[in-house]
Amino acid sequence: MTKTRSFWGWGYEEDALSAEERAAVGLVVADRLGGAELYPRPVPHVGELSLPAARVQPPAALASLLTDGPLSRAAHAYGKAFRDVVRHLDGQYPHPPDLVAFPRDEADLERLLAWCADARVGAIPYGAGSSVVGGVEPAVPDGYSGTVSIDLGRMNAVIELDETARAVRVQGGILGPALEDALRPHGLTLRHFPQSFEFSSVGGWIATRSGGHHSTLRTRIDQFVESVRMLTPSGVFETRRLPSSGAGPDPNSLVLGSEGTLGVVTEAWLRVQPRPDVRARGSARFETFAAGVEAARRVAQSGLYPAECRLLDPLEAELNGAGQGEAVLLLGFEAAGLPASVLEEQLRSALALCGARTEVSAGAASSWRSSFLRAPYLRDALALLGLVVETFETAVTWDRFVVLHERVVAAAREVAPAALVTCRFTHVYADGPAPYFTVIAPGRDGEQLRQWDAIKAACSDALSAAGGTITHHHAVGRDHRPWYGSEAPALFLDALSAAKRELDPRGVMNPGALLP
Amino acid sequence: MTKTRSFWGWGYEEDALSAEERAAVGLVVADRLGGAELYPRPVPHVGELSLPAARVQPPAALASLLTDGPLSRAAHAYGKAFRDVVRHLDGQYPHPPDLVAFPRDEADLERLLAWCADARVGAIPYGAGSSVVGGVEPAVPDGYSGTVSIDLGRMNAVIELDETARAVRVQGGILGPALEDALRPHGLTLRHFPQSFEFSSVGGWIATRSGGHHSTLRTRIDQFVESVRMLTPSGVFETRRLPSSGAGPDPNSLVLGSEGTLGVVTEAWLRVQPRPDVRARGSARFETFAAGVEAARRVAQSGLYPAECRLLDPLEAELNGAGQGEAVLLLGFEAAGLPASVLEEQLRSALALCGARTEVSAGAASSWRSSFLRAPYLRDALALLGLVVETFETAVTWDRFVVLHERVVAAAREVAPAALVTCRFTHVYADGPAPYFTVIAPGRDGEQLRQWDAIKAACSDALSAAGGTITHHHAVGRDHRPWYGSEAPALFLDALSAAKRELDPRGVMNPGALLP
Repeated sequence: MTKTRSFWGWGYEEDALSAEERAAVGLVVADRLGGAELYPRPVPHVGELSLPAARVQPPAALASLLTDGPLSRAAHAYGKAFRDVVRHLDGQYPHPPDLVAFPRDEADLERLLAWCADARVGAIPYGAGSSVVGGVEPAVPDGYSGTVSIDLGRMNAVIELDETARAVRVQGGILGPALEDALRPHGLTLRHFPQSFEFSSVGGWIATRSGGHHSTLRTRIDQFVESVRMLTPSGVFETRRLPSSGAGPDPNSLVLGSEGTLGVVTEAWLRVQPRPDVRARGSARFETFAAGVEAARRVAQSGLYPAECRLLDPLEAELNGAGQGEAVLLLGFEAAGLPASVLEEQLRSALALCGARTEVSAGAASSWRSSFLRAPYLRDALALLGLVVETFETAVTWDRFVVLHERVVAAAREVAPAALVTCRFTHVYADGPAPYFTVIAPGRDGEQLRQWDAIKAACSDALSAAGGTITHHHAVGRDHRPWYGSEAPALFLDALSAAKRELDPRGVMNPGALLP
Repeated sequence: MTKTRSFWGWGYEEDALSAEERAAVGLVVADRLGGAELYPRPVPHVGELSLPAARVQPPAALASLLTDGPLSRAAHAYGKAFRDVVRHLDGQYPHPPDLVAFPRDEADLERLLAWCADARVGAIPYGAGSSVVGGVEPAVPDGYSGTVSIDLGRMNAVIELDETARAVRVQGGILGPALEDALRPHGLTLRHFPQSFEFSSVGGWIATRSGGHHSTLRTRIDQFVESVRMLTPSGVFETRRLPSSGAGPDPNSLVLGSEGTLGVVTEAWLRVQPRPDVRARGSARFETFAAGVEAARRVAQSGLYPAECRLLDPLEAELNGAGQGEAVLLLGFEAAGLPASVLEEQLRSALALCGARTEVSAGAASSWRSSFLRAPYLRDALALLGLVVETFETAVTWDRFVVLHERVVAAAREVAPAALVTCRFTHVYADGPAPYFTVIAPGRDGEQLRQWDAIKAACSDALSAAGGTITHHHAVGRDHRPWYGSEAPALFLDALSAAKRELDPRGVMNPGALLP
């Protein structure tokens, strides 16, 4: 039985929390929030959608690729952030795409982009729509006759596999599970697992520089990209398959993170690896978060490179069933075709660096993992109860982390005094961690969106002022633009804008995202 | 006693081979080349320099920073490639810099660049002049009134050290040894050791994406750069210190590999590490190069990440004293603060993947290393004997390596039938190696330059057609431009040129390098 994708919330309708589960979890969370009031809201229904009329009509030659059906338009109106879900719940659709396109191949895409350039229609590349930063939201500046959301869902093939160099060539629209299904019979895997893995595409990962499963080394999709092919309004931009090159600035790096503003990622060669068959997992427990931070730093700087090195603060550990009143560091090593003794030595050495109560077992990691995969569904459930709940993330050098953490928590509490704020490290580098924050706060009737936007702005100001990046792996989209504008060197933005004028002379690619 | 830098050849005059050593090595090499004739040439002397008159005069306000002395101009006329050495031997200086500048700080540099833009003088950033691709050669297109070589040698300070996040802030002109000297008392090291380490600068490494000591993971300077500051004619381009960020395309990547065409790298924060205190080294020997290649691939794909994984073909091993008639794979693991058992397990596992005669000892690596550091001096000695001797390098996916290797060797032999051609892997990646070729061929009197250029063109055509990159870590400069032009996506070159117009509107930065 195929499941039904939710047009307004995370993932599959069948996997969402039931009304009973929602009610139960609502009681628990309201209690944790000191008796917060709940404002239960109805689950949105397709029949009730009310959208502004489409402003542009497709040319006859493209009609078969396009739809203006309300369900498609509503489903492509937003990504999957809390603020997207709330706007669905509110039935607010001020700027849905006028049309949704489903190109079958590059030829279709080329004709679509040519029409967009001609008719000054904003072209919004859409992989699988899991952006949490407004990256796929067709909110374009003035001066466009309309927008088309370009859904790459039909360009989802595995084209070629090179088992010697271990790389796979795929189309941009392929989703995580389909890619892994194709690799499994060959004993291979990409092993890039963003939380959105089931509902995000290779092209989306590349366009947004997504972060995956590995806490060290292959932390983001960048490291997996051997070459990339992007269709731009000026033609094809395709890099050569190379393990590495020092010839000029890296051409892949212009595509990685371009967020659909230069073109559409139609293909990529990705580095794959044998499926891990040996693992060593353990955990360390600390009385304070600060002690856990020091241990995480020592492991990150050890040269051991664990696949998993995830630090949970005491509240995060408790909420996810991984600990009680203590910070927990989850450590995991994995490999294929190596003796277990290699990984056991590595794990032992990493745990020895922790100076804490340690354990060689996968227990804490398993609890955490199942909770992690359910988290977006839980968030939707809490949104339906009128609460404010969302996550954001950054990266910062170790010397600045403690101050950044204090200021971000203080900023959230300043705006929402009753808020629960948790922090974990999703990735660690020798020179700093990537901290990931979750905020859960009581809602006020009809004010969920405004409340969250105020918290988010305060926290973004705080982390940016403390030397963090506005995003380690959620991307910039439309929501992070103000902070990105002050983080990126002004001359880099000039250079990037100049590059865009070459590749997208009419400025139709994802207008309003990333660049001013 | 301070040693004297050679103005025409590698390194220090005192470290060059003596006339007697040259004669001895000449006999051996001539014999290996089947009785090649030698054409000994005199060592160049400063007193004999004959340079064209400088075409531009410095403005009075800058006079104290500039010189038009013949020694400075000759020393800054070329890098340190074989073709540079030969042109020094030939006394050919068709386009030396008209002036050489020695700015003390960014303020000096800003005034210099402003004058260059005003007076349309080509500004050629010069770190320590070890380019082997014409990167610092003031051969500029028509339309410039002159050229100034900007020597960063006085901007060589260590500014700040962060021992928590383990990063050091330095000026662009600092050379390798000075940087290591500053880190040593803190128990830290950068451990980026290009062959040119003594005679190259941090700014040069960044501008050319240099390759260093590590065969895996931190293979090139890119991985060490936390942030960078570049002075361009349009102002300062400075990135934020971050362990990682997913905010838009990586701004560091526009500077890395820009080869002085966008601005001058004045500062960088580099990631440092504790000095290794445990090591495990070994080697494996193979009857054929092909068997060694397979073993290197297995190690590269194992997830073990040796610091050293260097494959020498039988001739390379023999010439360097590391083996006799067999290919040799040198493997080394290193770490700081970890039990030796961790590295020993890793080495054992890596050697077990080799399926060959293996040895746990550092012997072969030591022979190879001392030979490696002497290699450029040896090359100069052979050049002085009228031979043709040079190296070039590439990177290619594993599936294409065997064909690339065959074709490159065939191309060299086609042009120079008596040539010795050796190959080694300097770096290995999961998806492919970085092969490094050395060619030694008999010379013809007065034709060394033409002979090498013909070999180089044939080999570059061959490796490029076989799917390799024109450079893994020697950069593009002026010499590799034709092949770079076909390797890089055309739209990327358009984008890069557009970026250059923003950062260097008058087009005075290193004209003729990298970009058309």
